[in-house]
Amino acid sequence: MDHVSVGLLGFGTVGTGVVHLLSDDQEQLQQRTGCPIQIEKILVRDKDKARKIKLDDHRLTENVSDIIDNPNIDVVIEVMGGIDEARHYILQALRNKKHVITANKDLMALHGSELLEAAADNHCDLYYEASVGGGIPIIRSLRDGLAADRIQKMIGIVNGTTNYILSKMSRQPVSYQEMLQEAQALGFAEADPTSDVEGLDAARKMVILSHLAYSIPASLEDVTIEGITRVEQEDITYSKKLGYTIKLIGIAEYENELIDISVQPTLLPAHHPLASVDNEYNAVYVYGESCGETMFYGPGAGELPTATAVVSDLITVVKNLSLGITGHHIFLPKLKKQCKPAEAISSQYFLRMHVLDKPGAFSKVSHLFKEQGISLEKLIQEPLIGDEKAEVAIITHETNKRTFENTYHLLKDLDVVSDVKSYYRVEGMN
Amino acid sequence: MDHVSVGLLGFGTVGTGVVHLLSDDQEQLQQRTGCPIQIEKILVRDKDKARKIKLDDHRLTENVSDIIDNPNIDVVIEVMGGIDEARHYILQALRNKKHVITANKDLMALHGSELLEAAADNHCDLYYEASVGGGIPIIRSLRDGLAADRIQKMIGIVNGTTNYILSKMSRQPVSYQEMLQEAQALGFAEADPTSDVEGLDAARKMVILSHLAYSIPASLEDVTIEGITRVEQEDITYSKKLGYTIKLIGIAEYENELIDISVQPTLLPAHHPLASVDNEYNAVYVYGESCGETMFYGPGAGELPTATAVVSDLITVVKNLSLGITGHHIFLPKLKKQCKPAEAISSQYFLRMHVLDKPGAFSKVSHLFKEQGISLEKLIQEPLIGDEKAEVAIITHETNKRTFENTYHLLKDLDVVSDVKSYYRVEGMN
Repeated sequence: MDHVSVGLLGFGTVGTGVVHLLSDDQEQLQQRTGCPIQIEKILVRDKDKARKIKLDDHRLTENVSDIIDNPNIDVVIEVMGGIDEARHYILQALRNKKHVITANKDLMALHGSELLEAAADNHCDLYYEASVGGGIPIIRSLRDGLAADRIQKMIGIVNGTTNYILSKMSRQPVSYQEMLQEAQALGFAEADPTSDVEGLDAARKMVILSHLAYSIPASLEDVTIEGITRVEQEDITYSKKLGYTIKLIGIAEYENELIDISVQPTLLPAHHPLASVDNEYNAVYVYGESCGETMFYGPGAGELPTATAVVSDLITVVKNLSLGITGHHIFLPKLKKQCKPAEAISSQYFLRMHVLDKPGAFSKVSHLFKEQGISLEKLIQEPLIGDEKAEVAIITHETNKRTFENTYHLLKDLDVVSDVKSYYRVEGMN
Repeated sequence: MDHVSVGLLGFGTVGTGVVHLLSDDQEQLQQRTGCPIQIEKILVRDKDKARKIKLDDHRLTENVSDIIDNPNIDVVIEVMGGIDEARHYILQALRNKKHVITANKDLMALHGSELLEAAADNHCDLYYEASVGGGIPIIRSLRDGLAADRIQKMIGIVNGTTNYILSKMSRQPVSYQEMLQEAQALGFAEADPTSDVEGLDAARKMVILSHLAYSIPASLEDVTIEGITRVEQEDITYSKKLGYTIKLIGIAEYENELIDISVQPTLLPAHHPLASVDNEYNAVYVYGESCGETMFYGPGAGELPTATAVVSDLITVVKNLSLGITGHHIFLPKLKKQCKPAEAISSQYFLRMHVLDKPGAFSKVSHLFKEQGISLEKLIQEPLIGDEKAEVAIITHETNKRTFENTYHLLKDLDVVSDVKSYYRVEGMN
């Protein structure tokens, strides 16, 4: 093999980073793979647009067929984003026996199984390290490093935008809306932040991780999703007073052939390693049967981290090509999935409510918890300034989701409770 | 290939864990590798000793030649520890074209280059994931995941015993000696703890990581080593007051073809991700040119985490065998090494000293720092109860090692300074 030819679909931030790395590190790359890597063609929307990187004009094309149907191209790198077009192009590339690398988490979360099957059918490689956690080699670690272990649970901070907003909110007494605007101004949040702040982006990543860790055909419908838009400064303040930090946490647990995947604002003990993952950083905390607790931490996004993950995958593909072993590493789901019922999902909870400030009020509340079989681990009560009410924040002992949600509804109906402001899961205690 | 035969050198804690994992997970392993794995022989000192795991008598041998010269054995797993014998056996096994997996960090730190060369010469695999950080796939990540990046610096907590002692000392007002005794009683420290508490064990791991990350023939002589035996409770208390945590930190930095490797008690900002790595846990924090900051966290030792790392390596070897690509992944040092001079090693420092409690005393101290060109970032002064002195703790701004050490000696000679109690590097600020 005298060289490997690469076609790029997309020349935005990540695409530019990939071209940058491939041209800067030519020599080192060749040393590592034993073979020069050449960028043959790049698909762009407009050939005439001004760009940061100067390339020969004939390298750019507006016609995707110049890449996915080009017999001279060995590897297609998809960094254009979006779903339908990208899916269509990748399937066509695989049919044409091209190996594919993608950074597209939305696509992998929605159509991962279909694409992986197409890759397996065509004996092609399909790698997607960059789709989760940018610079963190979490996918590779799940596939290779922890291969000898049975993974029981993963909890992760897998969205940089929401982590940035919550980190800042826990340092300054600002509201969610104010922080969102600052994050948008600084480029840490998009103009339309819905997919990030509503938890959808994190949910997609948890689907990809669950697929790999548990070998099940996880899909978005399996995920309970709650974003950070309703997190108030008071939730953060009371969490701190009780010794916790609020993060948007993805949880994926597999036990007795039952899966539970969720994304939601969650309290972590302040000394938990995930609690010091701040700003735009991501981290995934993995519980393995044999390995115990491991954590992978790094930048969740960004041009160079993401591009580095893409180039790592490219190095693997080039090595596979030289060794003639492409298509051997496709990980198709082998097990069936069934979602855990709410009765079987156990955790601790944080709950914040306003209670009338009169004799016997709190005794009614505590009686209700007792009746429901939930015991309380920690509690703070403080007067609400200028109001005849008290604010109460509680950390329960472990209970199950069904019982807790029932109790929540009963609390709301209690005459001495004027409002239940919020409740969140508490994780990372064991 | 109908099956892969494995010989084990050693049947202690890790060896038992490996046998345990291989027999428990037979089916899953075969699914992952496409090939059954069989333990052919285990080298023990005494066949008749009572053991936790029952095995057919003929599987045990007291004669190493039954394994390393046995034509039926494909892979030799060395979990016996020690240096000379282990080195000799591994070299012989490689000459006999057996692939080798070792968990022996002492051996890899001292003779890694020789063993890797022997593996390359014989087209054999040599994997050693378990030698650093037990359950953390750090070696694999450096080799594969970060392959597309240039690593600039690594700082790590790579010794569980010392981290256990320092974590406990920072939670309770106990002395180093008391905590060491507790750690020994609980089995977290050995009867002869020298190699751990003097920093030697951590230094060996930093040598192995430097070799991989920088592709240089690093050796123990390149490492500046200081253990934790002189860390006093007062150092921890003052660090906390200034916003820091003391950890035994290994640092390996490569810049302009100059290497700096050290192991020493070091202050980290309390919010740094490494600062919440507690007890027997390990973590390595990696600075990559493109990837930015990533961290790998997990249990540093223990029967199952270490055994899991060994079995991960075994899975890789078995896959390589099926694909006919063994011996392709040996990482020999490609670059020359030269140690950084003290003038070029820059960092912040913590310093604690006793100063006479009289007018003008502190002005003499601050004048000396000014003369040496070192500016101070933070300072606490407190009276020493029952003494005519004050205790002063300082965090300097960035300076170089040579200047700092000169200043230290000048301070000791200053008439108003009765004693300089300690000084440590400060890391993780940028």
